[in-house]
Amino acid sequence: MLKISKLFFVFLIIFSCTKNEKIDVVSNESSHPKLILTAQGVRDIRAQLGNIPIFDNSLKRVKEEIDAEIALGIDVPIPKDYSGGYTHARHKRNWVVLQKAGVLYQILDDEKYAKYVKDMLMKYEEMYKTLPLHPKTRSYARGKLFWQCLNDSNWLVYVSQAYDCIYNYLSEEERNKLETNLFRPFADHISVDSPQFYQRVHNHSTWGNAAVGMIGLVMNDQELIDRALYGIKGVNLDKKAKDDDGGYLNKDGKAGFLANIEEPFSPDGYYNEGPYYQRYAMYPFLVFAEGLHNVKPELKIFEYKNGVLLKSIKALLNLSDADGDFFPLNDGQKGMSYYNDALVTAVDISYHFGKQDPGLLSIAAKQNKVLLDDSGLAVALGVKNGKTKPFDKKSINLSDGSKGKQGGVGILRNENIELVFKYASQGSSHGHYDKLSFSLYEKGEEVIQDYGLARFVNIEQKGGGNYLKENKTWAKQTIAHNTVTQNETSHYNGKYEIGSQNHPDLHYFSFTNKNIQVSSAKVAKTYPGTDMQRTIAVIKDEGFEKPYVLDIMKVVANKSNQYDFPYYFLGQVLSTNFKYSIPEILKPLGNKNGYQHLYLEGFGKSNKDNTKFSWLNNGKFYSLTTISNTNDEILFTRIGANDPDFNLRREAAIMLRRKNTKNTLFVSSIEAHGSYSPVSESAVNSKSNIKELKVVIDTLDYTAISITTLNGDTKLFITANTEASKEATHKLTINNENYEWSGSYYFK
Amino acid sequence: MLKISKLFFVFLIIFSCTKNEKIDVVSNESSHPKLILTAQGVRDIRAQLGNIPIFDNSLKRVKEEIDAEIALGIDVPIPKDYSGGYTHARHKRNWVVLQKAGVLYQILDDEKYAKYVKDMLMKYEEMYKTLPLHPKTRSYARGKLFWQCLNDSNWLVYVSQAYDCIYNYLSEEERNKLETNLFRPFADHISVDSPQFYQRVHNHSTWGNAAVGMIGLVMNDQELIDRALYGIKGVNLDKKAKDDDGGYLNKDGKAGFLANIEEPFSPDGYYNEGPYYQRYAMYPFLVFAEGLHNVKPELKIFEYKNGVLLKSIKALLNLSDADGDFFPLNDGQKGMSYYNDALVTAVDISYHFGKQDPGLLSIAAKQNKVLLDDSGLAVALGVKNGKTKPFDKKSINLSDGSKGKQGGVGILRNENIELVFKYASQGSSHGHYDKLSFSLYEKGEEVIQDYGLARFVNIEQKGGGNYLKENKTWAKQTIAHNTVTQNETSHYNGKYEIGSQNHPDLHYFSFTNKNIQVSSAKVAKTYPGTDMQRTIAVIKDEGFEKPYVLDIMKVVANKSNQYDFPYYFLGQVLSTNFKYSIPEILKPLGNKNGYQHLYLEGFGKSNKDNTKFSWLNNGKFYSLTTISNTNDEILFTRIGANDPDFNLRREAAIMLRRKNTKNTLFVSSIEAHGSYSPVSESAVNSKSNIKELKVVIDTLDYTAISITTLNGDTKLFITANTEASKEATHKLTINNENYEWSGSYYFK
Repeated sequence: MLKISKLFFVFLIIFSCTKNEKIDVVSNESSHPKLILTAQGVRDIRAQLGNIPIFDNSLKRVKEEIDAEIALGIDVPIPKDYSGGYTHARHKRNWVVLQKAGVLYQILDDEKYAKYVKDMLMKYEEMYKTLPLHPKTRSYARGKLFWQCLNDSNWLVYVSQAYDCIYNYLSEEERNKLETNLFRPFADHISVDSPQFYQRVHNHSTWGNAAVGMIGLVMNDQELIDRALYGIKGVNLDKKAKDDDGGYLNKDGKAGFLANIEEPFSPDGYYNEGPYYQRYAMYPFLVFAEGLHNVKPELKIFEYKNGVLLKSIKALLNLSDADGDFFPLNDGQKGMSYYNDALVTAVDISYHFGKQDPGLLSIAAKQNKVLLDDSGLAVALGVKNGKTKPFDKKSINLSDGSKGKQGGVGILRNENIELVFKYASQGSSHGHYDKLSFSLYEKGEEVIQDYGLARFVNIEQKGGGNYLKENKTWAKQTIAHNTVTQNETSHYNGKYEIGSQNHPDLHYFSFTNKNIQVSSAKVAKTYPGTDMQRTIAVIKDEGFEKPYVLDIMKVVANKSNQYDFPYYFLGQVLSTNFKYSIPEILKPLGNKNGYQHLYLEGFGKSNKDNTKFSWLNNGKFYSLTTISNTNDEILFTRIGANDPDFNLRREAAIMLRRKNTKNTLFVSSIEAHGSYSPVSESAVNSKSNIKELKVVIDTLDYTAISITTLNGDTKLFITANTEASKEATHKLTINNENYEWSGSYYFK
Repeated sequence: MLKISKLFFVFLIIFSCTKNEKIDVVSNESSHPKLILTAQGVRDIRAQLGNIPIFDNSLKRVKEEIDAEIALGIDVPIPKDYSGGYTHARHKRNWVVLQKAGVLYQILDDEKYAKYVKDMLMKYEEMYKTLPLHPKTRSYARGKLFWQCLNDSNWLVYVSQAYDCIYNYLSEEERNKLETNLFRPFADHISVDSPQFYQRVHNHSTWGNAAVGMIGLVMNDQELIDRALYGIKGVNLDKKAKDDDGGYLNKDGKAGFLANIEEPFSPDGYYNEGPYYQRYAMYPFLVFAEGLHNVKPELKIFEYKNGVLLKSIKALLNLSDADGDFFPLNDGQKGMSYYNDALVTAVDISYHFGKQDPGLLSIAAKQNKVLLDDSGLAVALGVKNGKTKPFDKKSINLSDGSKGKQGGVGILRNENIELVFKYASQGSSHGHYDKLSFSLYEKGEEVIQDYGLARFVNIEQKGGGNYLKENKTWAKQTIAHNTVTQNETSHYNGKYEIGSQNHPDLHYFSFTNKNIQVSSAKVAKTYPGTDMQRTIAVIKDEGFEKPYVLDIMKVVANKSNQYDFPYYFLGQVLSTNFKYSIPEILKPLGNKNGYQHLYLEGFGKSNKDNTKFSWLNNGKFYSLTTISNTNDEILFTRIGANDPDFNLRREAAIMLRRKNTKNTLFVSSIEAHGSYSPVSESAVNSKSNIKELKVVIDTLDYTAISITTLNGDTKLFITANTEASKEATHKLTINNENYEWSGSYYFK
């Protein structure tokens, strides 16, 4: 078998050297590899080896890694541990090693890798055929190798690729043995035996679908492929059943890979759980799609739903800051970035199967790693051939909802300032009660932060690395976000059922003037009887060193309420234009809805029309100016009360509190300005440039704010609150001055 | 005049091209420039221009800077502001501009720079001859251009250089005018008119001395030179008078530049105020020394006190972490580093006038900047000619005190771990009450921090950029440091008079075994009747991923006391092996001596022989293991109570509290281990490797600690508490085992 195979390759190499265009020597159905690596791809790669630096280096690292593993010997232990324990870690490691060894066999044509894969697979086969459910019982869907089906699915997604790579190396008898005793029952366990895991629209199910589908493609098993694409035939879950996170298991009966593309992705490619989970879900989406593209090109999977899979990669890359770190919307752990391996997959696939966007090459170059497959080769060649261009992140609006009608996320970019305006829908079970919240970045550094999740992923000492209870009691609550909390309760009363049935709506966005980026959205029903509308602009104007933020939050309510509006600034308090006192002892600000986790560190009252606050962070100065009245309270808060395990970061906010108020308008500017160097000890431009913000008018239809700088220049920003289409024309008289414009806003 | 000068230069260049060795064409006394730039240096520089990248780039940046200034025009405003105000900033800027323009005139031979310097100097002359004292009255020694003589002296140190550069460009009449109306009265004002400023051993006086001496050298005025070197003849200050910081003005009558070298520098080159102020004082020390070397070589200034000036540069560079940031000992602002311009001066002078240490070139390359003078040329040529070697920082012990007998600072370096053990003397008025304290770094990042100062230097919003009251109430206090506080009072009762008359003493240091770095020091009289001895080792041992710290603090007291021993860790609490409770409300831990600034955030009691605590910082894991008894209290504290202006950083400590105890021993290990990546989300080696620490014996003469790892390996560390010379031999029987060794400690 081996000799034939080698000869066959020699023939293929000669063949591919004499003919330049790609020719399928044998049909897709029977030639291997065909799933991710393809027979043609292997020929192309071999022809280029030694001549494609990023690829060569990636290959070298993988070879070193796998050679070291082979030297250690094979271990396929009887499963017994949760994540963090040995058997969990070993099986997790094995799936990586198998996939990479398979690839090395194909690329290097060295039999030792094929033998290693075969030997390990045979050990799995030997164990699996009598393996009971995993002994740990915590999961809603127990696996066999792992405590949860999710990890079993991860395993199969990778191992399908390994099997594909050594398919031709194995005898038919060996293949039958593996398929009968390992792969087929494995695929059945995570699907037909675990419908509560498999038969859903959920990132877990996506992994399950991909696992079943990929092994189906390798085995050429149409039943498995169909099960992957469309779900388990004839199985319908209880539509009212809920999962551990409080989400419905399967409210509308949809399932399968196509439904998992259909539902969570908006037409713009925004994934409803947010970028952190999109990154996690990305790998099975893309790698299974790549397999489908290669084996079942007639499905045109990359064109499905108007090409949403490739769009989603662009969306995800745009959901990262200047350093490539994803914005931690919803449950997101800070620091996750496009350097994650899933994004290597995403960038390479997007480049190869998309339109060869040269901007992607610059990210690939930063990643300094490519997939060892056809797409990685394409990227490595692109970089090598000097096609790289910068990946220029611009302002972007990403709709949410499967039809793009459930709010969205607006990213306003202006020079080094990035503002993330979140008016998205609930975000499934990982969503936060943070409607119309925002976060602010300068050069990739957080200025006004989104807290992210309360979890230390995979750090066993912190609740086993799982979600901490503070994720629910703090991180998801409205008061943990830079938006309005009414009467110390969270949006939608903190209830998933309500949140998941409502969402904000885009009012407008306007990015055409490069100096002025604006996004405006509305939300009803976060609180009964209260409507909110937030318009945020990032404005680069003469006289200002850097773009500044203008933030207008309009609240219309049918009764008097208390409104709390925090800004979670990072850094050190520099100055205020109001007096405040500090308490002798620190007490929690409340007893529920997140307030129990805040200490009150300082308390003041505004005594001016504009309340000002400046701070210093990472050598840069920032100033908040907010229109205020003498009843406004100003609170300095700090996170950390009622936190018995020190799970929360002790970070601060300045909070505006407006009591006994029905309709109201919060108007603030945030300026980034100047710098401080501890080396030269020079403070440059350390003060706000804004003398006064003023509400000029505020009606149902228009809100107009004047911005006056220190040297007396005044600009007027008018936003249209009702009709704001690009085409709409507006006429407005303010203080006997006539203003006429067309479009969503006026600024002059 | 100009034509002659140009012809003269042409002659000189030709001359220097035909002869290779340096020849003084005219005597030092009359040729100009001669102070920092020399006539010969200028010839050498011109010959190399365009061929010395770092120099060329530095020159280019300076030229751009000065050309822009010239375009703006000259402004010499009537002085009226404190620092932060316009006139202060302008005069400060002018001194920089004058010095640089003078250098450009010499190097580029472009008359426009000379004219610019002349024009500005004439404006100063015009103003100065009738200028009264500066209107602001806060300083103990008011200047004329600035609110304090210190800044006037800064001005003259720089402007002397400018004057020297254009000396030959000016007519004799012009020189007479400047010297009579500006320089001579200027020098008199900061010296004979301000003896309380000038006639001291203090960094302020050093600036004054250098200013007077440098203008004296340019003017060839022996009286000024002598006044600079030896102080004002016949003036003696009241020996009991004190300055604003509580230090004596001049207790022993010493004054002048030589006394300012003699007193504050130890023979090892440690400056008694610490690295932050050494950096500040460095410039006048070195630039005046360079001038003296050039004009009065017979003084052999760089050999003075066994070459202490050049040694001090080496000491200073060693007092920086892996990133080049100075350890914030005493009053030190974090972030100050060897990228500061004063260190460009220091590195270049050290290289040129010292032994051309190739390690200095690597720092110069990082600085990417050289002085535009003879020394900068030497460095630029060294780098260009490939002589650069890494500046290899090793463990080092730096004695303190003018004779090296007043304690010191030990820096223990072992792979990426740096431990700074401070057993120095009081450190003049900038000292902290922190005897036997330490701080710990990994790869240039703080692990166990020294708080530094409570000040935002030059940030006007924070108390005008001056010292904040929390510097005294918090930063200087013992409880703000990683050492023992007895009965909630600071060392020496927080009194400068007592602190400045006492100091710790080195017991031993041993750096010969590269795997084991040890330093031990003793101190008496921090508290009456209490002696302390601390021995700190950084040990690289088999079975440990990284070097760990072993910390032994032995306290011998004549009565029962309470001992508080904090570790100011940075990062997030991960786990403890003891139970603790958190209070519902946060209260200050005490009401004075720094305790009023600490909140108690958690309280526990040890229930084991070893108390363990782990934390995570910047993606790295750390564990503290400390030998404890069941009466030991464990407190989690956080800085920030009674801080009405948010001047303090809200950072944490874990504090061991031992009550009602006479003699005692605190023994702890600190391990750095593993890593966490938020990109791969993998936690590697996240747990302590130490199973148990145990006191095996503790006598007057010996303390022996056993360290047992998780896999059961036990090592014994014995430190000799009394006789610890390298030659001493020791015999000791512990549990029937005999131990024999020679030297300070035993480890096996």
